[in-house]
Amino acid sequence: MGSSANLKTNVDMANEGIHTKGEALLNIDPDSLVRFLHPTIDPKAKVDVLATGLAASPGAASGQIVFSSKEAETIYNTEGLPLILVREETIPEDVHGMGAANGILTVRGGMSSHAAVIARGMGKPCVCGVSSAIVDMENNTLKIGGRLLKSGEIITIDGTNGQIFAGEVAKRQPKLSGDFATLMQWADEIRRMRVRCNAETPNDCKAALEFGAEGIGLCRTEHMFFDEQRIMVMREMILSNDEEKRREVLERLLPMQRSDFEQLFELMPGLPVTIRLLDPPLHEFLPKGDEEIIRISEAMGIEEERLRTRVNTLNEANPMLGHRGCRLAISHPEITEMQARAIFEAAVASAKKTGKPVVPEIMVPLVSMREELEYIKQRIDWVAQDVMRESSSTIDYLVGSMIELPRAAIRARNIAEFSEFFSFGTNDLTQTTFGFSRDDAASFLPTYQKKNILPHDPFASIDFLGVGELIEMASQRGRETRPDIKLGICGEHGGDPASIEFCDAQGLEYVSCSPYRVPIARLSAAQATLRNKML
Amino acid sequence: MGSSANLKTNVDMANEGIHTKGEALLNIDPDSLVRFLHPTIDPKAKVDVLATGLAASPGAASGQIVFSSKEAETIYNTEGLPLILVREETIPEDVHGMGAANGILTVRGGMSSHAAVIARGMGKPCVCGVSSAIVDMENNTLKIGGRLLKSGEIITIDGTNGQIFAGEVAKRQPKLSGDFATLMQWADEIRRMRVRCNAETPNDCKAALEFGAEGIGLCRTEHMFFDEQRIMVMREMILSNDEEKRREVLERLLPMQRSDFEQLFELMPGLPVTIRLLDPPLHEFLPKGDEEIIRISEAMGIEEERLRTRVNTLNEANPMLGHRGCRLAISHPEITEMQARAIFEAAVASAKKTGKPVVPEIMVPLVSMREELEYIKQRIDWVAQDVMRESSSTIDYLVGSMIELPRAAIRARNIAEFSEFFSFGTNDLTQTTFGFSRDDAASFLPTYQKKNILPHDPFASIDFLGVGELIEMASQRGRETRPDIKLGICGEHGGDPASIEFCDAQGLEYVSCSPYRVPIARLSAAQATLRNKML
Repeated sequence: MGSSANLKTNVDMANEGIHTKGEALLNIDPDSLVRFLHPTIDPKAKVDVLATGLAASPGAASGQIVFSSKEAETIYNTEGLPLILVREETIPEDVHGMGAANGILTVRGGMSSHAAVIARGMGKPCVCGVSSAIVDMENNTLKIGGRLLKSGEIITIDGTNGQIFAGEVAKRQPKLSGDFATLMQWADEIRRMRVRCNAETPNDCKAALEFGAEGIGLCRTEHMFFDEQRIMVMREMILSNDEEKRREVLERLLPMQRSDFEQLFELMPGLPVTIRLLDPPLHEFLPKGDEEIIRISEAMGIEEERLRTRVNTLNEANPMLGHRGCRLAISHPEITEMQARAIFEAAVASAKKTGKPVVPEIMVPLVSMREELEYIKQRIDWVAQDVMRESSSTIDYLVGSMIELPRAAIRARNIAEFSEFFSFGTNDLTQTTFGFSRDDAASFLPTYQKKNILPHDPFASIDFLGVGELIEMASQRGRETRPDIKLGICGEHGGDPASIEFCDAQGLEYVSCSPYRVPIARLSAAQATLRNKML
Repeated sequence: MGSSANLKTNVDMANEGIHTKGEALLNIDPDSLVRFLHPTIDPKAKVDVLATGLAASPGAASGQIVFSSKEAETIYNTEGLPLILVREETIPEDVHGMGAANGILTVRGGMSSHAAVIARGMGKPCVCGVSSAIVDMENNTLKIGGRLLKSGEIITIDGTNGQIFAGEVAKRQPKLSGDFATLMQWADEIRRMRVRCNAETPNDCKAALEFGAEGIGLCRTEHMFFDEQRIMVMREMILSNDEEKRREVLERLLPMQRSDFEQLFELMPGLPVTIRLLDPPLHEFLPKGDEEIIRISEAMGIEEERLRTRVNTLNEANPMLGHRGCRLAISHPEITEMQARAIFEAAVASAKKTGKPVVPEIMVPLVSMREELEYIKQRIDWVAQDVMRESSSTIDYLVGSMIELPRAAIRARNIAEFSEFFSFGTNDLTQTTFGFSRDDAASFLPTYQKKNILPHDPFASIDFLGVGELIEMASQRGRETRPDIKLGICGEHGGDPASIEFCDAQGLEYVSCSPYRVPIARLSAAQATLRNKML
């Protein structure tokens, strides 16, 4: 029985009183909802079918052809254009490029190929095994349906039926009505946990709201600095040798950040918005490789050697464990102060505009000790006082910390003294608890799974026995210090049904996940309430 | 009062009954012993003084001048020659080069400069602030005392008084006699914990034994693969595409490993020897950079492209959290089997030769789950059975795991099912608990210390509140499963007095540290016994 039929049957049976709403909710596999959540090809659209492959991950997407993951990332970060990544087959190194593309097309591989599995996890349309197509990586061409397409040409893929079309094809946005809407309504009546989204762009925010998100659980501010204009200013700041010069440059970033936040607050009136302070190491904003260094140094009008030296100095052996997260806020408090000011000024402006109060939740990443949070919170509080005085208004806000390092979980009692909320960053917590780099795990995790040493991927579903104990520890200890501490999760596990059930059992207030996973999380949260009640 | 006088006074007072031996032991700062433990310039030697700088770290050393840390590492790993690293001043990137050198000389910097602090930590002679000298990095020359020395020329430095001499100067090995020996004897009478050493070369083993080491707590087998001949065989193995070919190449490494272990066992008759299975990621054995790739591919007679591809495939974003430790043993069990066979065959041969039983302790690194250890222990047991049958003898041995990841501490109850001992690898445990990369921490830890956020360096002294809780957790949980589980520490904290006191309080059976820290650890362990008894 297909999941659409299954959904209808279960809703009908509940409506007819054959089983309860709860039973209807428990009968549906949350992951099966994924097919309702993506754009589909408009049935009235004229299409020019180039080929058909395997329907590896549902949804339709259009975009410029791009043959390299690196290039996909660059275009996404700089120009933000919609892209279709075309590869012979994908490998773990392609993951970031896949994340940057709107859809993925591969010539080889089946339903359980790397491309298919990862695309489904990301909720991205994917067509695999298009064996009639020929990718020529040397000349950057795709031979398909008798045509020779170059990189930059636009195609459309339909991951629901495996078709590939020339050019842009009109699409219909998913309609979340009928039985689907009924089921979601029942889920909302029953679930205890709130569902927020991980989003920072207006598009993602709008999609998330349509899917029923109840606020933002993770706004990654660094994503706001990758467009061509801003990244240049960021670079200028990073190349400044003293704090005074950096403050000057940050002054120019302030209005941009402020308008970002105004947009978010206005899109989410009356809803909680959690904003994470700058997290990645600064070298992520600098050029990589000789060619780019030369190009950027010319564009910035600075000596190549100076740029190269800075790139080399910031280069790290293990960037995951390096100078990032709140460590940046400690070494460069001026960045935090700019971000806090942008948040508070936007909160004041948006509240005036919408008439609804804005209560920003400022989240400090990569905390491992109370003293870090104390130092940073003090600076945020100072800025809040300044903005309140300047604007003659009151601002309510929360300051909290991500719990994404083992030491943060262990020291949660202590950290809660300065944290009004904890948000579990289970991606990094999984990395540090296991000592697994997510980017490198593809070289050994498949062997672990094959040899039955670690049957499930801990980055997909929370490792209850290890990482889970740290989450439990942090929740308990945090509550000891601050009984009303707000607890949530913003790692990608926030969209995984098994992990959501675990979060419910821990009494978390909300889960936050990518926009397309929000309905899945709503159903999962309802199932969790039902199941955990039975215990 | 200098520490030599202090030592004599305290021993005398105890001998005269003015205070107890325990009071004498508690009155001496363990770190002050460092000056008794290093070679000194033979007072009868003819010397040619070139200059005098600051006596930054005690001891005398001679060696070839080397101006780059990279080069120091290469020479050390390939030719093993004694070196003096000469730098304008050192930076964090120089740490490995400092480790490869016998002594360090810097033109700039005082007693608390990077070079001075790190050299003291390593127990290496260092002369700093030799402002009369001029280092010319372009031409690789050192202008000093009116002479122009080139790289490769030999000098001698005396870190106890700051003098620099031309050529090799005769030295006296430290005599651990008199009051020093008396104090050590008292420490040995009182201390509960054993003191082992981290060593794998015959020289280090001999030095450690003279300093009173009671066995080896950490033999890093990878250090045995860096000489010119062996690294070529390692490379051949890494470049082999299938297990069968790898097994063939490993057959050639087997006799080399076996003779390494025979040497160790014969140097440590009747003493425990803990051998850690191969730990670093395989790319550490491959060439880095274009130049080296070309040179090595010629030397190996393989196509440059093939070597380059393998280097690129093995390259990792975060090698610290990558495919290393027991993950190598899971993906390449043939390496473990070769190492186990070498250990067992050496144990049989050495026991016959010395007449003393050899009980090797095989240590599995980077364990995070029981299943890893179960898989690896099974293979070790199979090899043991084979060797016992082949040699018609019985071998006693232990298999245990390092506890160096948070998850290992959490799951210790479970891991102890297959672990006869735990050894705390506090370097990596500190890295993963804090999410601090040791190689990168120099970019933010000094700021943390300056701003009083983290007053002490957690890599120097165990972070009791965070890492310490994990050590306590692992000890308790390990004992629940296996009450007689053997517990030790082999991270560099094993030579730090404050950390040793903590280990004693946790009931660890032994600490293991670098050879030159052994007497410091003996005194610290005695102080710990005295102090913890008072509690």
